[in-house]
Amino acid sequence: MVQSSYRKVKEEVMRMRRLSLKPKLLDVMAGGLVVVLNSAYAHQNDIYTGYRVIVRYKKRQIIAMVDLSNDLAKPGEIGLFYEVHKALGASTHGTVELELTSRPQSIEYIKAKMEGKTLEAGQIRTIINDTMDNRLAEGELAAFMTSCYIRGMNEDEVVGLTESIVATGETLKVGKSPILDKHCIGGVAGNRTTMVMVPIVAAAGCFIPKTSSRAITSAAGTADAMETLCDVSMPIHEMEKQVRSIGGCVVWGGAINLAAADDKLIKIRTPLSLAPKGVLLSSILAKKKSVGAQYCVIDIPVGRGVKLNDMAEARALAKDFISIGKRLGITIEALITNGEDPIGNGIGPALECRDALACLEGNGPRDLRDKSCQLSGTLLELSGKAKKGTGYSIAASLLDNGKALAKFKQIVEWQGGEVKKLNSHSVPIGSYHHRITATRSGRVSHLDNKLLARVARACGAPADKGAGVYLHMEKGDLIKAGDPLMDLYAESEGKLDMALRVFEKMEAVEMEKVVLDSLRE
Amino acid sequence: MVQSSYRKVKEEVMRMRRLSLKPKLLDVMAGGLVVVLNSAYAHQNDIYTGYRVIVRYKKRQIIAMVDLSNDLAKPGEIGLFYEVHKALGASTHGTVELELTSRPQSIEYIKAKMEGKTLEAGQIRTIINDTMDNRLAEGELAAFMTSCYIRGMNEDEVVGLTESIVATGETLKVGKSPILDKHCIGGVAGNRTTMVMVPIVAAAGCFIPKTSSRAITSAAGTADAMETLCDVSMPIHEMEKQVRSIGGCVVWGGAINLAAADDKLIKIRTPLSLAPKGVLLSSILAKKKSVGAQYCVIDIPVGRGVKLNDMAEARALAKDFISIGKRLGITIEALITNGEDPIGNGIGPALECRDALACLEGNGPRDLRDKSCQLSGTLLELSGKAKKGTGYSIAASLLDNGKALAKFKQIVEWQGGEVKKLNSHSVPIGSYHHRITATRSGRVSHLDNKLLARVARACGAPADKGAGVYLHMEKGDLIKAGDPLMDLYAESEGKLDMALRVFEKMEAVEMEKVVLDSLRE
Repeated sequence: MVQSSYRKVKEEVMRMRRLSLKPKLLDVMAGGLVVVLNSAYAHQNDIYTGYRVIVRYKKRQIIAMVDLSNDLAKPGEIGLFYEVHKALGASTHGTVELELTSRPQSIEYIKAKMEGKTLEAGQIRTIINDTMDNRLAEGELAAFMTSCYIRGMNEDEVVGLTESIVATGETLKVGKSPILDKHCIGGVAGNRTTMVMVPIVAAAGCFIPKTSSRAITSAAGTADAMETLCDVSMPIHEMEKQVRSIGGCVVWGGAINLAAADDKLIKIRTPLSLAPKGVLLSSILAKKKSVGAQYCVIDIPVGRGVKLNDMAEARALAKDFISIGKRLGITIEALITNGEDPIGNGIGPALECRDALACLEGNGPRDLRDKSCQLSGTLLELSGKAKKGTGYSIAASLLDNGKALAKFKQIVEWQGGEVKKLNSHSVPIGSYHHRITATRSGRVSHLDNKLLARVARACGAPADKGAGVYLHMEKGDLIKAGDPLMDLYAESEGKLDMALRVFEKMEAVEMEKVVLDSLRE
Repeated sequence: MVQSSYRKVKEEVMRMRRLSLKPKLLDVMAGGLVVVLNSAYAHQNDIYTGYRVIVRYKKRQIIAMVDLSNDLAKPGEIGLFYEVHKALGASTHGTVELELTSRPQSIEYIKAKMEGKTLEAGQIRTIINDTMDNRLAEGELAAFMTSCYIRGMNEDEVVGLTESIVATGETLKVGKSPILDKHCIGGVAGNRTTMVMVPIVAAAGCFIPKTSSRAITSAAGTADAMETLCDVSMPIHEMEKQVRSIGGCVVWGGAINLAAADDKLIKIRTPLSLAPKGVLLSSILAKKKSVGAQYCVIDIPVGRGVKLNDMAEARALAKDFISIGKRLGITIEALITNGEDPIGNGIGPALECRDALACLEGNGPRDLRDKSCQLSGTLLELSGKAKKGTGYSIAASLLDNGKALAKFKQIVEWQGGEVKKLNSHSVPIGSYHHRITATRSGRVSHLDNKLLARVARACGAPADKGAGVYLHMEKGDLIKAGDPLMDLYAESEGKLDMALRVFEKMEAVEMEKVVLDSLRE
């Protein structure tokens, strides 16, 4: 009784505490929606750092956080950081109305999750909506992520989170069937299966609206590699039209407003490499759901140096994907793949693009061709487009008969690329190169994904599209001293030197050893 | 083996990646140490948002976080926010050296805490040092706090955290004995026992270097009330000198660099009201340890509307204080007190100050006098200054014989206040006032701490020192319609009106009821 009247009064007081302020534009980004008030003035008005306020200018309004300063704003002024005055379309004329807003409901739900309670779908939706409305501070979102990590999430929660994330963005409406999709957990150098799979699947008469990412720590993402040939940023209705017309596309997910909340969640997860399993599942499946996927294959690489090291863990993740996919209406098959070593020969945007093109021409690196056919075949069987046991050979024949290549050129052309002279040798690569040869004979026992990515990045990848590493051997090869190991490509001599120094400091290529260690007194 | 060589290379690459940049001063506070690089330029150099960098200018250096922008910095420029260029003493001349720094070790320890592991003292020290050096982002610290909350902290961890926090600030060296201290968990309106206790304890020949806080959500903190009489901000060596000379002081803790890390931790805890018990204990005890306290009394109010509602929880907290205090060399007695209703008559800086002065004059509100004597007596007995069972009466006699008042005036004078005409009626209070009378007869059953604080704040407290509420009755009083309930004081008519509207909206004074509820079909 007292509590409820207290809440009523608090709201009443807040409603009264509306301030009219003179805007002062601060041409600096704050990294979020932040307004600055004069410290003394704010305290007089019972406003403190971190308070949430509704900020109105003419007909627009946003929710922002308050910061205090003695210098940046005089009493009666409001300092608007770049993001705020851009969002409001504010100028120095007129006045800004500021109103305190109450503590968002999400905070109670985040605390409940901290306490170990299970959240309902509506509560998760509130957290995601408050995230999108910028009502939650970085620390509050981090507390939510940490709680999800420690407490875990059950299947209902993951489904609720996924549906909430989907609802924050647009959804693709291709209006055709079957809609197929694929996803790879990542971590393997090279591995440009998407560029081979999408044309195979489209050539087989299916629809695959593929969104891909750019490199974060790798030498190239699919979007980086595809961009050496054509545009990868397009509005959602263009993407719909393309897939409806020619069956597939390869675009950069970052340019499209699908599953918008996910970007905000990723920003929180990154610094701590904090990926609660449930959030990871939601993040991936929300993107699949947003494009309308009905069938999806998930590539889960396992091995030393990639995200998962353990078969049991990989199997558990696969099962989660499958059962949550089912709840969302997506039929999923997960393939646990060998992630120990790079796939393909090239590492870097243009070099990986050349590998993919070579596969589409019916040649290309054996492992990339094989893996692309495995994944495509699985997807075709899953959707019923191919009979059980025939998927792989259908995929392989679409590579061999040139239909996948023709489909790929159609996709590149639709996305604004030039295809007349396009082939696996036409893609420009760095004009500075250096060959690294073996210093001793023996058998190659391991190629390290992370170290090779590091060398390719030192060459200039992914920003320099032609930069990277081209491998001349793979794990298991028996080589002689003097045999070529790899070529480094760069777009400047300085970067090539740098990459060479990086290479020399480490053991990216491991040779089989007889004596593993020696000890004496 | 590969892992270690990988790490080595990464460090090597980082060491190579030193950039010389042209400083651009951004006269805006970022709320932390943040530098801005041009997006394209940063990506070329393999630097991304949130990377930690060492920033050097001439002989100074700091650790900052990278933010990227297309507009705020051109390639080769570095935008320095206010906090950064102030810390570096940078001008637009010369160059700024930037070097990538590796992921701080703390992150591994934070993750370990997330996983449920117990941290060693050295690991906690690293987290606190990285916090002080600004190496951790808000989200990372929030993840640490959340993990401490969910996983809990054992006694070793709390002791380690407390000692780490103490080490981040200065420590007081009074060079006398015994050093006494007190702390209240808070939440009770009025309750200005500190201003009565400090002079009692000092008059008894002990030393009490008291730091107090300002109001956050209440109508006045001790520092706010004391400030109506004298200065409360002083450098640490002045505080040492004062306590050594006259036995006591009452200063604002926020102005002194004691337990510096605690301010940063509080900033993280505040938005979520996230107070992991272990962190709360550390935060309080670090301040006691920093002033060199040997004996300390902790006031733990319990009841509806204060932080603790439950005797069992209060007892558990008391036991934690005692045993962790012991490990830190502080002998603690915890008193669980009745926190249901306000203590004293005044609510607001000057009105509370008047209550304290009245007690020191040998009069004053019965409950405030009683509680102050209880707390002081406990402290005198604890330190051995008073024999068991005599503390209360010694405290009371120091109030009655004027010695505590004389000591208080000495303290006020030392802190720059005027004492010649000082008495409980001389402290100026708001010139606008309004009397609220009872609308019906009956017994007062409850006075609500939070609601009364809200009314006092609407009057203008704590910024307007003379504003607040003066209570004419207390819980249990039998009153008649028309009897005075309370007076509201404000420094402007507008605020008085506002406070009255706030009062009318709620039930700050509850009267005993016979019928608690009625129900029918």
